[in-house]
Amino acid sequence: MAKKNAFYAQSGGVTAVINASACGLIETARKHKDKIGKVYAGQNGIIGALTEELIDTSKDSASNIAKLKHTPGGAFGSCRFKLKGLDENKAQYERLINVFKAHNIGYFFYNGGGDSQDTAHKVSQIGEAMGYPITCVGIPKTVDNDLPITDNCPGFGSVAKYVAISTQEAALDVRSMAKTSTKIFILEVMGRHAGWIAAAGGLAAQQEGDAPHIILFPEIAFDQKRFLAKVKQSVKRYGHCVIVASEGIKNKDGEFLADAGTTDAFGHKQLGGLAPTVANLIQNELGYKHHWAVADYLQRSARHIASKSDVEQAYALGKAAVELALKGQNAVMPTIVRKSNKPYRWTIGVAPLADVANVEKMMPRNYITRDGFGITDKCREYMLPLIKGEDYPPYKNGLPDYVTLKNVLVAKKLNKKFKI
Amino acid sequence: MAKKNAFYAQSGGVTAVINASACGLIETARKHKDKIGKVYAGQNGIIGALTEELIDTSKDSASNIAKLKHTPGGAFGSCRFKLKGLDENKAQYERLINVFKAHNIGYFFYNGGGDSQDTAHKVSQIGEAMGYPITCVGIPKTVDNDLPITDNCPGFGSVAKYVAISTQEAALDVRSMAKTSTKIFILEVMGRHAGWIAAAGGLAAQQEGDAPHIILFPEIAFDQKRFLAKVKQSVKRYGHCVIVASEGIKNKDGEFLADAGTTDAFGHKQLGGLAPTVANLIQNELGYKHHWAVADYLQRSARHIASKSDVEQAYALGKAAVELALKGQNAVMPTIVRKSNKPYRWTIGVAPLADVANVEKMMPRNYITRDGFGITDKCREYMLPLIKGEDYPPYKNGLPDYVTLKNVLVAKKLNKKFKI
Repeated sequence: MAKKNAFYAQSGGVTAVINASACGLIETARKHKDKIGKVYAGQNGIIGALTEELIDTSKDSASNIAKLKHTPGGAFGSCRFKLKGLDENKAQYERLINVFKAHNIGYFFYNGGGDSQDTAHKVSQIGEAMGYPITCVGIPKTVDNDLPITDNCPGFGSVAKYVAISTQEAALDVRSMAKTSTKIFILEVMGRHAGWIAAAGGLAAQQEGDAPHIILFPEIAFDQKRFLAKVKQSVKRYGHCVIVASEGIKNKDGEFLADAGTTDAFGHKQLGGLAPTVANLIQNELGYKHHWAVADYLQRSARHIASKSDVEQAYALGKAAVELALKGQNAVMPTIVRKSNKPYRWTIGVAPLADVANVEKMMPRNYITRDGFGITDKCREYMLPLIKGEDYPPYKNGLPDYVTLKNVLVAKKLNKKFKI
Repeated sequence: MAKKNAFYAQSGGVTAVINASACGLIETARKHKDKIGKVYAGQNGIIGALTEELIDTSKDSASNIAKLKHTPGGAFGSCRFKLKGLDENKAQYERLINVFKAHNIGYFFYNGGGDSQDTAHKVSQIGEAMGYPITCVGIPKTVDNDLPITDNCPGFGSVAKYVAISTQEAALDVRSMAKTSTKIFILEVMGRHAGWIAAAGGLAAQQEGDAPHIILFPEIAFDQKRFLAKVKQSVKRYGHCVIVASEGIKNKDGEFLADAGTTDAFGHKQLGGLAPTVANLIQNELGYKHHWAVADYLQRSARHIASKSDVEQAYALGKAAVELALKGQNAVMPTIVRKSNKPYRWTIGVAPLADVANVEKMMPRNYITRDGFGITDKCREYMLPLIKGEDYPPYKNGLPDYVTLKNVLVAKKLNKKFKI
C-alpha cells in the first residue's frame, strides 16, 4: 500500500484520558513514516472532516504530543454530531470521501462511544462502495463503560476512581458533622442508562457501616418508600447516610426523576438536578439536614487523579489502532481483554465494528445487591483493577501542566464549502 | 506547673487538613510527657466536653496518629454548636470547668473558625474567674479564609487548589464540546459572605481567553444585565464561557439568588442551588446549552489534591499551639505570617484571641477586577503560594489510605449528665 495520511477524530463527551489515546496513536504513527504520512485531526471531531478543517498534528512537537498523555478534555475539539444513515444523507458520506481523497487520507481513526463506532463502521463500508477504500479503525472511549466486547472503556476507570475517592472523602466530612448538623450527603454522578459510574462509588466502602450507604442505579426503578426506609435506617445505625445517585434514576413508569426537558443532538434527554430532587424528598419526608453535590464535568475531566490502569489502556488502544490499520485490518476496534484479576493483567484484543456499533452494555444484575442499593463482591472484583494506580500529571505553580496544542489547520483543497 | 492533661476539639465545618493540625498537636504533646499527660479529644467537638465524652488519644498508635496528617474530615467528630454568652448560660461554662477539673485538664485547644476562637476566648476568661485557671490556645481553621491577623487559614489553601484545578479541568472539557454542544459551564463553590474560594477559581486562568471567564463574588451585587452581556461576549470571543460562582451571590437588594424563590421543573423550591439558578437564567435569556456542577463537600474534603503549603501550615499550627501553651501563653492563637512571595516563606506568629474572635476578613476590593468579574494580579500574588505543592496521601487498592481512629472513650467521672 502506498504511503497515505491518517485522519483521527474525537467524538462525543470527552474524558480524562481520550488525549492519552490520541498520544498513543500519534506517537505510533510517527514511528511508521514509511507507511503513514501525516496524522490530520478533525477540528471538533467529524465536523472537521466535513468542513475540511483538518489539524496538521505534525506541527506540534514531540514534547507537546507527549503531554497529551496527561491532559484531559479533547485536544482537537470533539462534537455531538451523528452522521445520518446512508439512505438519509448520502451527501455527508460523499463529502467525507472527497475530503479524504483531496488530502490523500487512507486511514480513518474514530475515537468515541457506541454512536461513533457505528459511524466508523458506516465509513468502512461506504469507502469501498464509492471507489475509495479506506482503512477504518475505531478506538473505544466512554466514561459510561457501556461498549460491548471490550472488558471496559477508557475514561471509565478514571471517572470511577474520582467518584470512589470523592465518596470516601465527603463521607469522612459528613460523618464528622452528623451529630449536630448534616446527616445526609448526596453525590450525583453521570450515567443515563447504565449504573457503572454510580457503582464505582461503592468501592469507597471497605468495611461494615462505611459509605456509601445507598447507591441509586438507573437499572433499578426508584421506590420512594423503600428508599426512605433505608435512609432512616442508615441514620439510625451510623448517624448519617451517604447516597451516590446516578443522574438517570427513573421511577417505575420509566420517567426520569430529574428531567430537565431538554435534549441533545442525538435526541438524548439532557438531565440535571437529580441530587436536589432527592434532597428535597428527604427534607420533606424525614427532615434531616442534607448537603448535595453534582460532580458533572468535574468527574470526567479529573485527570489530576486519573487511574494509572486507565491511562495505560487508553494509550495502548491508540497505539493498537495504528498497528491494526498497518496490518490491513479494516472495520475493527481494539479492545481490552482481561487476563487475570490478581495480579491484574490485561492485553489488547480486536472486535469487528459491526458487533460493537449501537450495542449498549448494561450492569449485570448480579453486580447489584439483591435490595438494589449496593454493589456485590463480583462488581468490586471487576472494578477494583480499573481504578488501580495513580498517574499524576506534572505541576507548575501549584497547577497541573496541561498542554494546549498549536492546532495548525491544513490549507483547504476543495472549493466547495459544506453546510453541516 | 504540675503535669496536666490537655483537651482538644474540632469545631465547625471540617476541612482537608484539620486532622493535620490534630496530628501536629498530638505528636508535639507526646514529646512533652513531663508537662502534658494525655490529650483528650472532644467527641463531636465541644459537645464532648459538656457530655464528658472524651476520647483518649493515647489509645491510638503513633502510626495511626501520623496518618491523621493525610486524612480529611474531623477524626474526632466536629459540631456546629456555639457556647452561649456567659450571662445567658453560665451552666455551660460551669459544666466545662467541672469536666476539666474531673479529668485534670489544664490545657484547652480549640480548632476552628471565628466562632470557635470566641469560645476559646470566653473559656480563657471564665476559667480564672471560677478558680480553675486553664491555658487556652485557639488553632485557626476555616476554608472560608475569613479569620483576621493570620495571613491565611488552614483548609483554605487546599480548597483553593481543588477549585483552581477543577475549573482548569472542566474548562478543557467544555472547550472541547462547545462547537456543537455545551457552551456554558458553571461551577458553584462555597462562600456565603466572602469570595475567597470563588477567587481561587481565577488561578486557573494563565493566559488571555483562559477560563474562568466570569467569577461571581458575594461581595459584588449581581447585575443580571451586565452578567448576561459578559456571558454573550465570552461565547462570541472564545466559543464558550466558564463561570465560577460563590453560593452566596446576592442581588442589589441583598437577597441570595439561590433563595430567590425559584422552582425546578417539578415546581419544587430550589435548595441552595445557585448554579442551577444561574444556568436557568442563561438558558432562558440566551439559550446556550449548559452544564453545571456543585462541588459542596467535595471541595473541602479533597485531601487527595491538598496543597502542600496548607498541610504543612496546618501541622505547624497544631504544633505551635502546644509550644505556646507550654510557654504559658494564654488566650492566644498561632498565626501564619508571610515573609516573602518569591520564594514563598512564612513563619508562625501569635495573636491574642480577643483580637481574633468574631472578626470576619473580607476580600479586599483591590483583589477583584474593576468590572467585578475577575481577580487582579494582587490577588494572584497572594493566593498562588497557598496552593503550592502537592502532598499526596498513600494509596491502597486504588484508594487513599485514610485512617479511622479507635476513638476509645475515657471512663466518666461525673455522676451528673448534662443536657445540651
